[in-house]
Amino acid sequence: MTYCLGMLVEQGMVLIADTRTNAGVDHISTYRKLQVIEVPGERVLMVASAGSLSLTQAAFEFACEGFDHDGDGGAETLFTVTGMFAAANLLGRALRKVRGEAAPVLEAEGIGNDASFLVGGAIGSGRRRLFLVYAQGNFIECAADQPYLQIGERKYGKPILDRALTHQTPLDEALKLGLISFDSTMKSNLAVGLPLDIAVLRKGERALALRYRVGTDDSYFAELGRNWSAGLKAALAGIKVPPYFDGAR
Amino acid sequence: MTYCLGMLVEQGMVLIADTRTNAGVDHISTYRKLQVIEVPGERVLMVASAGSLSLTQAAFEFACEGFDHDGDGGAETLFTVTGMFAAANLLGRALRKVRGEAAPVLEAEGIGNDASFLVGGAIGSGRRRLFLVYAQGNFIECAADQPYLQIGERKYGKPILDRALTHQTPLDEALKLGLISFDSTMKSNLAVGLPLDIAVLRKGERALALRYRVGTDDSYFAELGRNWSAGLKAALAGIKVPPYFDGAR
Repeated sequence: MTYCLGMLVEQGMVLIADTRTNAGVDHISTYRKLQVIEVPGERVLMVASAGSLSLTQAAFEFACEGFDHDGDGGAETLFTVTGMFAAANLLGRALRKVRGEAAPVLEAEGIGNDASFLVGGAIGSGRRRLFLVYAQGNFIECAADQPYLQIGERKYGKPILDRALTHQTPLDEALKLGLISFDSTMKSNLAVGLPLDIAVLRKGERALALRYRVGTDDSYFAELGRNWSAGLKAALAGIKVPPYFDGAR
Repeated sequence: MTYCLGMLVEQGMVLIADTRTNAGVDHISTYRKLQVIEVPGERVLMVASAGSLSLTQAAFEFACEGFDHDGDGGAETLFTVTGMFAAANLLGRALRKVRGEAAPVLEAEGIGNDASFLVGGAIGSGRRRLFLVYAQGNFIECAADQPYLQIGERKYGKPILDRALTHQTPLDEALKLGLISFDSTMKSNLAVGLPLDIAVLRKGERALALRYRVGTDDSYFAELGRNWSAGLKAALAGIKVPPYFDGAR
């Protein structure tokens, strides 16, 4: 399992992905799930993946190298597409191709073949956009009303985003909220774990403002987890017990 | 969807269930999902159900009326079983019987046939116990290390329980935590909704200490939701933004 989060706010965009991959509890490894394609001044694409690593790695490679040499699309790649919609579409087509070939065999042997991408960024003069590409190759775009998209183990980290993240949240606060969302997820699911990879793109820019890895010894992240736990305890302490039940009896 | 929570702490046991049932967004109704069998001084059983209402209603009815008249089990019912293990086993057999008959037809028509129970309580001189009965009729028991069990839409409400609920949590605090878990779930999933049904059993007693319905106009629950939101905001405000990203630039 894995957890990847993309947030699109007024000041920019944040992608965070964990690096835990597992095929059963005795086969846990660390893999980079957040890839960045950056041509400073021209394009920044951040691609996070969840699901079968064999499928998402192959699809990402095809999207980078081109795979449609004989088709109408020419040899379009993530380095040549002229907009974010085309980038999402290309990743979707690559995923569809890879899954189309592998899924029947995987299914026949009872092996999971779920796979999805988050892809965010900006190309040329186009605005920054964030998409979620499903296993079937179709995709949806993140909009201001719900300024985030998630793939993988998304439920544990969703409540805090629903409560606190809006399109107007400042970029550094959004990054903080995202890290709290990961902290909550890791508390409830062992299959999501450190290190975390972070990429931040500011509005209007065509180069990353931050690329950072939260390691297992990251003091800020450890402090964030402790402070969040303490803050939750204080919030709990501030709530009265139900008046209709007499605990002291 | 629905969400049911059972908590087993040193001072007693709490069951909470919502009442929302839906078969598509245009077919939402309110049904009681928390049933209580109470013979004061002798037995208290609290049964909460999630999944296909037709299956859980029928299985509960069979468990109350008896269905094994010709089998070795005689006509054992939830009113006659002599312990909580036997009660969980009876509900499991009833569910297996009902699903065994209905599931092939439901599956053939693409209709969901998931169903599960929480059953907690105490019978005679036996200690209080809490079980989760799976659709297949097998079941697990709640233990002190993780003092709660959930069925239905359980993920959104799990993080706060993982952080704050222990076997030593006082009974009224546990009830409060359970209600916060429901508040979090309802914020992130429209298919879980008010009213909520609550049942509380104190350790050593054989009659409910509380049976309460949290209605849509319940002022304590509304206040709990507001205070929890405010407390979370305060907790968030107390956490610094990441030192490795300059938000002000």
